[in-house]
Amino acid sequence: MSSIGGEVVTCKVFSTRDGLGRSTLLGSRQSLQQGKFSHAKTIWGDRSFKENTRLYCRRSCRMQSAQVQKKPFEDQVDPSSKIPSSTAGEVITCKAAVGWGPGQPLKIEEVQVAPPQAMEVRIKVHYTALCRTDLVFWEAKGQDPLFPRIFGHEAAGIVESVGDGVTDLKPGDKVLPVFTGECGECRHCKSEESNMCDLLRINTERGVMINDGKSRFSINGKPIYHFLGTSTFSEYTVLHAGCVAKINPEAPLDKVCILSCGVSTGMGATLNVGKPKKGSTVAIFGLGSVGLAAAEGARIAGASRIIGIDLINDRYEQAKPFGVTEFINPGDYDKPIQEVIAEKTDGGVDCSIECTGNIKAMIQAFEACHDGWGVSVLVGVPHSEAVFATNPVNFLNERTLRGTFFGNYKPRSDLPGLVELYLNKKLELDKFITHEVSFADINKAFDYMIKGESLRTVIKVAE
Amino acid sequence: MSSIGGEVVTCKVFSTRDGLGRSTLLGSRQSLQQGKFSHAKTIWGDRSFKENTRLYCRRSCRMQSAQVQKKPFEDQVDPSSKIPSSTAGEVITCKAAVGWGPGQPLKIEEVQVAPPQAMEVRIKVHYTALCRTDLVFWEAKGQDPLFPRIFGHEAAGIVESVGDGVTDLKPGDKVLPVFTGECGECRHCKSEESNMCDLLRINTERGVMINDGKSRFSINGKPIYHFLGTSTFSEYTVLHAGCVAKINPEAPLDKVCILSCGVSTGMGATLNVGKPKKGSTVAIFGLGSVGLAAAEGARIAGASRIIGIDLINDRYEQAKPFGVTEFINPGDYDKPIQEVIAEKTDGGVDCSIECTGNIKAMIQAFEACHDGWGVSVLVGVPHSEAVFATNPVNFLNERTLRGTFFGNYKPRSDLPGLVELYLNKKLELDKFITHEVSFADINKAFDYMIKGESLRTVIKVAE
Repeated sequence: MSSIGGEVVTCKVFSTRDGLGRSTLLGSRQSLQQGKFSHAKTIWGDRSFKENTRLYCRRSCRMQSAQVQKKPFEDQVDPSSKIPSSTAGEVITCKAAVGWGPGQPLKIEEVQVAPPQAMEVRIKVHYTALCRTDLVFWEAKGQDPLFPRIFGHEAAGIVESVGDGVTDLKPGDKVLPVFTGECGECRHCKSEESNMCDLLRINTERGVMINDGKSRFSINGKPIYHFLGTSTFSEYTVLHAGCVAKINPEAPLDKVCILSCGVSTGMGATLNVGKPKKGSTVAIFGLGSVGLAAAEGARIAGASRIIGIDLINDRYEQAKPFGVTEFINPGDYDKPIQEVIAEKTDGGVDCSIECTGNIKAMIQAFEACHDGWGVSVLVGVPHSEAVFATNPVNFLNERTLRGTFFGNYKPRSDLPGLVELYLNKKLELDKFITHEVSFADINKAFDYMIKGESLRTVIKVAE
Repeated sequence: MSSIGGEVVTCKVFSTRDGLGRSTLLGSRQSLQQGKFSHAKTIWGDRSFKENTRLYCRRSCRMQSAQVQKKPFEDQVDPSSKIPSSTAGEVITCKAAVGWGPGQPLKIEEVQVAPPQAMEVRIKVHYTALCRTDLVFWEAKGQDPLFPRIFGHEAAGIVESVGDGVTDLKPGDKVLPVFTGECGECRHCKSEESNMCDLLRINTERGVMINDGKSRFSINGKPIYHFLGTSTFSEYTVLHAGCVAKINPEAPLDKVCILSCGVSTGMGATLNVGKPKKGSTVAIFGLGSVGLAAAEGARIAGASRIIGIDLINDRYEQAKPFGVTEFINPGDYDKPIQEVIAEKTDGGVDCSIECTGNIKAMIQAFEACHDGWGVSVLVGVPHSEAVFATNPVNFLNERTLRGTFFGNYKPRSDLPGLVELYLNKKLELDKFITHEVSFADINKAFDYMIKGESLRTVIKVAE
């Protein structure tokens, strides 16, 4: 800390290892006071905070960094990003990419977007990205299809107007919409561990707002279904305020938009759940975007060996920038891959992250952990009939198996911290973005994903 | 801390919650210095330590206490407990209870006990207790029986002599023999998490010393097999020095002897692995000695509800002194017991500890945990063919499943701290001891256990 005397202080933030760093950080919950930071190690560089700004770290991380959130951002909004809210309370007609049926190319349509109701927010979507979950529900194989629907859930935008009762968001705020929410009141939101909000937990089947069971989208009076409560393939969309994370106004929306889902899920699986120590050996099962984000988390945590496991050899080269140091293709071996890994690692990895959803890979990932201390984290979503089966002695030999949802990040509390991590160059987001397309070309994003050519395609929705 | 000036200081020890308390405690690893304890909260009351005594806490506990070890205990040995080592280097002839065949009553015999070899220790066993593992290997059902054998592994005694290379134990030291060891050199011993020492990990099949592959017991030249490296059903026994925990000389051996196995296993499962927070709801599956020790751990951790699950109704009354507040007999319900528990607990328990080894109970215990934060700990040893099977979504909904061996206690590092916890009246051991018998009556201990009448029977071995 350089000085505290006037209104603004500069302090150095933070080591959050258990001990002094963390207690210092937790101590700062109350207010930013001189002396609190005198012993904290520097890892985030100089940052400016207003005196009495509330900072907090929701959990300690094995890595030497924190999810630090600076809030509120009042008086820090970039004036140039402010949007006049002359449209507040009005129906907005704008462009949206509408899915009319399973697997049918999306069609850019003029849609009407109703104003936000109580506890809702209408945002202008500047950038959105395509995540596999969009693809899965657009293909609607083996599902009860819900069409017409506006897909999209990885995005970044700016608040246009807010409904009654919304006090912590206002027009002009830069935000990330999130497919799962944080009501702040339920047992899950009040738990340090959970992010599975009772009120706003992900619901893939619901196509309407929870407030009145109706859609805010329509074309000539005919409702269009929402998707995941986000529907970001639209210039304007309406969300529950609990699904909107306010972020630093300095954040570039074309980059941070990908923090809304997959990247955070993989990163959090490693950093929040697996928590590998510096120097650890980490295995990542599946090197898609989520797996690479898990590897990025391992890289940030200081893992010394990051072993990628994938059936596609070409993915090794793509994975190297994410920290992957070794590659195993299970197809190259005629024995269980957990045995191969045990041989290469003197008994097993310290931490494994399963990002495929294949039940066989889930079991392999768990059994590939070292006894005594190994931690395995399940991320991928399996077939509903899948059964995880293993000899219980694998647990008794002191292995831990955990699952995660959205990387255990609380969307509103934690995403702003990830944005900070990006702004401070600790988290490298740009390498996830392999393609950029215009809104008119949104179907190309689907093509890239189906062909396996892309990690993330960012779609520019609104100017 | 009252003062530091002379040789002895008095300090108040400790809150070890993450934060100041813990960092203070960890800071004390190096030496006891003035100021280190100024902010530490008092929970252990005044304790006297010599200046520069090394204290340490191997891991933080959710409960507000620490495993504090004061070492070494030099100059603190009760002179009255010292045994002249005139027998050092000699073969000792003494009494032992020898098992001659599966299920045959033990017979008190005169046995010859050879002197300890390199890195071995010979101890005089004052008290031993019967644990179910003794019973299982004595019955030898479905095993390759190893007889004649001297059973016994829960015990307390005093060092009689030490072999070459043993530097941290000496004649007169009060000790607990342990069925698993801590070499201090392997990856497991160097890990913060593991206690599964590569060199001295439990081996039920080995009946000899690892030094030379021979037994130290014989009757007229015919070797008698060891059991678990401990064989405490003998007035004198020889162990690897890594399996001997030096404890406070003030400890009453007739009580602390039961810390060698079952009680520590159950306690540690809760305190070290499940780590329930104060006010938590904890479910204990199986209310035998290990389960009651797990409940005792939950009680110490400050759980507000401790639900015992057992098929024997009478066990509820017996369990109440261990903190059990509610009881469920799965036989009383015609639906899965995890559903019953979820209904009683608004979605599941915060922590469950499985102490039966029944695979069905293991799965129930896991699935009875609350999503978002529930942690389940497997303690009981299952049938070798058992398969743990569950829908992986139970993990993805943010449940954690862990197994433990000996409650994750490192035997030499951590058992002395448990003895302190007993001496400081935080841990209540006496209530586990339901019977006491003479060495001549050792078979009664087996009868009590087989009939389900006892928790722990303490056997007085030597005067």
